[in-house]
Amino acid sequence: MLSWSNFNLSGILKIIGALVVIEGLFMLLAVPFSYYYQDGILDSLLISSLITLTSGGILYFSMRKSRSKNLGKREGYIIVSFSWLIISLFGTLPYLISGTIPTFTNAFFETMSGFTTTGSTIFNDIESMPKGLLFWRSTTHWIGGMGIIVLSLAILPILGGSGMSQLFGAEAPGPTTDKIHPRMAGTAKRLWIIYVLLTLTETILLVFVGGMKFFDAICHSFATMATGGFSTKNDSIAGFSPSVHWIIIVFMFLAGVNFTLHYFGLHWKWKKIFKNQEFKFYVGMLFVAGGIISLGLFLNNGQDFVDATRDALFQVVSISTTTGFVSSDYLLWPTYLWVLIFILMFTGGSAGSTGGGIKQIRILILIKTIAVEFKYLIHPKAVIPVKYNGKNVSDDITHKILGFFLLYMMIFVFSTFVMSLFGLDFKTSIGTVIASLGNIGPGIGGVGPVENYASIPTLGKWFLSFLMLIGRLELFTVLILFYPPFWRKN
Amino acid sequence: MLSWSNFNLSGILKIIGALVVIEGLFMLLAVPFSYYYQDGILDSLLISSLITLTSGGILYFSMRKSRSKNLGKREGYIIVSFSWLIISLFGTLPYLISGTIPTFTNAFFETMSGFTTTGSTIFNDIESMPKGLLFWRSTTHWIGGMGIIVLSLAILPILGGSGMSQLFGAEAPGPTTDKIHPRMAGTAKRLWIIYVLLTLTETILLVFVGGMKFFDAICHSFATMATGGFSTKNDSIAGFSPSVHWIIIVFMFLAGVNFTLHYFGLHWKWKKIFKNQEFKFYVGMLFVAGGIISLGLFLNNGQDFVDATRDALFQVVSISTTTGFVSSDYLLWPTYLWVLIFILMFTGGSAGSTGGGIKQIRILILIKTIAVEFKYLIHPKAVIPVKYNGKNVSDDITHKILGFFLLYMMIFVFSTFVMSLFGLDFKTSIGTVIASLGNIGPGIGGVGPVENYASIPTLGKWFLSFLMLIGRLELFTVLILFYPPFWRKN
Repeated sequence: MLSWSNFNLSGILKIIGALVVIEGLFMLLAVPFSYYYQDGILDSLLISSLITLTSGGILYFSMRKSRSKNLGKREGYIIVSFSWLIISLFGTLPYLISGTIPTFTNAFFETMSGFTTTGSTIFNDIESMPKGLLFWRSTTHWIGGMGIIVLSLAILPILGGSGMSQLFGAEAPGPTTDKIHPRMAGTAKRLWIIYVLLTLTETILLVFVGGMKFFDAICHSFATMATGGFSTKNDSIAGFSPSVHWIIIVFMFLAGVNFTLHYFGLHWKWKKIFKNQEFKFYVGMLFVAGGIISLGLFLNNGQDFVDATRDALFQVVSISTTTGFVSSDYLLWPTYLWVLIFILMFTGGSAGSTGGGIKQIRILILIKTIAVEFKYLIHPKAVIPVKYNGKNVSDDITHKILGFFLLYMMIFVFSTFVMSLFGLDFKTSIGTVIASLGNIGPGIGGVGPVENYASIPTLGKWFLSFLMLIGRLELFTVLILFYPPFWRKN
Repeated sequence: MLSWSNFNLSGILKIIGALVVIEGLFMLLAVPFSYYYQDGILDSLLISSLITLTSGGILYFSMRKSRSKNLGKREGYIIVSFSWLIISLFGTLPYLISGTIPTFTNAFFETMSGFTTTGSTIFNDIESMPKGLLFWRSTTHWIGGMGIIVLSLAILPILGGSGMSQLFGAEAPGPTTDKIHPRMAGTAKRLWIIYVLLTLTETILLVFVGGMKFFDAICHSFATMATGGFSTKNDSIAGFSPSVHWIIIVFMFLAGVNFTLHYFGLHWKWKKIFKNQEFKFYVGMLFVAGGIISLGLFLNNGQDFVDATRDALFQVVSISTTTGFVSSDYLLWPTYLWVLIFILMFTGGSAGSTGGGIKQIRILILIKTIAVEFKYLIHPKAVIPVKYNGKNVSDDITHKILGFFLLYMMIFVFSTFVMSLFGLDFKTSIGTVIASLGNIGPGIGGVGPVENYASIPTLGKWFLSFLMLIGRLELFTVLILFYPPFWRKN
């Protein structure tokens, strides 16, 4: 029997209500900017926030008596998937009420692109937008980067409790198991503190070293640390000074690192960082790809070597962490260089980072799995485990990783076909899919670094929004809801 | 220590010698056609055959005293990989001596493309070629389709013996375990008999129903049953009558079926066929893809429905079995239709068929693996096996399949980058790689159905030849030779 009655529905609604309230409060952050710049959308922001706060508040208070402590794994999937959907719906209000985006499809696409830290935009002229709205747009990145559920676990005691580990696991599902605090709320709090500290540091550097205006600096810091990619400029980062490029390269890199390692770093446990295999793999990959592309730009394009290195590193770090900022249009590079960039679209950031994609740790374990198969060919009767950080990886985890990779590739292939059904050409179909599923932003073909998504057909935008969501929540959390046995009574 | 002395070298050389002798005899099959058509290359064919027979004979007789019975798994990999390489080297002789292909690179590419049943050609004008050479070209397909080692096991008692199962397993590595005869030689003989019978039947039908000339009929039958794709016409199958199209559709389909099922069919065990999950999956996939494309051609291109169905089925069966015959240029279809064809380039034929690619059974097991992961999300503590044909699939086999798929995808990605280094555009890079690795022939971009490989740079041709070889031998058989521990003493 398919039924809601098998689930703790009121507990689910209560939590979603609380999350919507948090979202309404975040909307108010845009108010000072709107007022300062006199951008004419102050009313719209206040009304949006009011509607959001009221709706969330009503939902929360009408369900406040329900128990939220005994939520199970299945409730976790439901809460996370639906709260991301509902938050994206409320997130469209500032766009719609201010009239900046007149159609619901475009507003939803832009908001989902924000929360999932994809960074794909439907705006042709970003610089003409009201500043308050640009700030809200960057804020959606920042909320979605570390995750609104992780945030709420950190700040709301009412959500604390043993059942909440389900939520944490469903919003940040990756294969890592490192705990930095025995309690989930403790872990969430530490992650958010690191996130805030890094965002502040970047903002300060962008203002005082990079010479950016404060407004641009904070918007870009939000987008960097979330590996989002929304800019306040039409040509993204290209127009800023080289020092801004270097600062953003460093912080994109940091955003793509497992935040547990930042925690170790803050506690001077450097050994733990430099012995971490995913970290070494991540750095190695950036180094190799960056090296090849620097050399390519230097030799083929005749660029100055320092400029070539900066352009190469910027695009390599931006794409592989799934940020999607642009300092140079890689589609104008020789084919082999942007093919390499395209390949990086699949890797993604580290597990436990704010980056999307397949994730470094999965790629690493997959490569190790292949190596083990070669060993089995020579020693068919041996027992050869896959090792990670010196420990055996259990069959459970390798199966989860393999399952994830297979599903990712099948969704990629199927979705490319779907997008081609909307009349897009081959490269654009591939580009829109990987850029959305991997939460990157710019793709290849008609959605390259200097293009936007305005011309994608309406149905295509909805489909891509769905890909962004399942990509951000690592496939299973959302897709399990489409698997009928999930809804049956045990 | 890396050393040949760890291996039974003389046993390896003896077998390779015998295989080269068999190849020399096959070359003589072209002689009657050369004589009948007075194509002027009779001498070249005889000299090529003589060189091949002599070389193979000397190798075999100088090593005839070595024991070949105690060959191990590792010798199996070496024999199969090197014999395919050496046979391709001798196979270039008719092209080079007749001067039809003046450069060694092109001759090697064409020969490797023949033996691996890829069917990519460097000829701009096939119809101007000497008939005897066209026949040799088709013969390379036919030898490679079922495999020269499987053939030699069937006809040469000296190769019989327990160690030979290693060779069989290395040339036809797939994940199937069905045996149709307790002895390897018995299985090999039955497979080749079915292969010969199907080839003869197709030839007769093409002549008497399709109205083809005998020469064209036998060349196309060789290419069909081997899932090769070399034609004797510049426009492949397009110029022949609809009845020829239908006959070739049926036999391409049959060539893509596991030959064990043909054996069951000959023994009226129909139940075993229709209960086989891979067969059902293969038929289902062709049906769905064929249906979508028929409809697409009917609606978008305004083709007559019967014509649309024939064109759709022809290309779907040709590409998914990795044959590569062409009756219509799919790159001229609407994008979403050829994107579907492109996706089929990855599936390949059934295991135990002559088709290449990833193979249907692997795709099926991979899909089942994903389904199992969904079940685990709901029942984390259950033990849920992957089932195939009603039996549990062991972890060993699923790991092998997953490892194969991962390696295939990584080689695909890496090779696309390599081909783009040679200056090819994105689509052509992808197209050349998948068409070679999957042993298909036509790809996308600059190597579409009406194009050829003449313009690919020399190094690119060598790289693609290598991809054809590793694709035909299912990756591990060849690549294990590049894995240093393989060469170390146990």
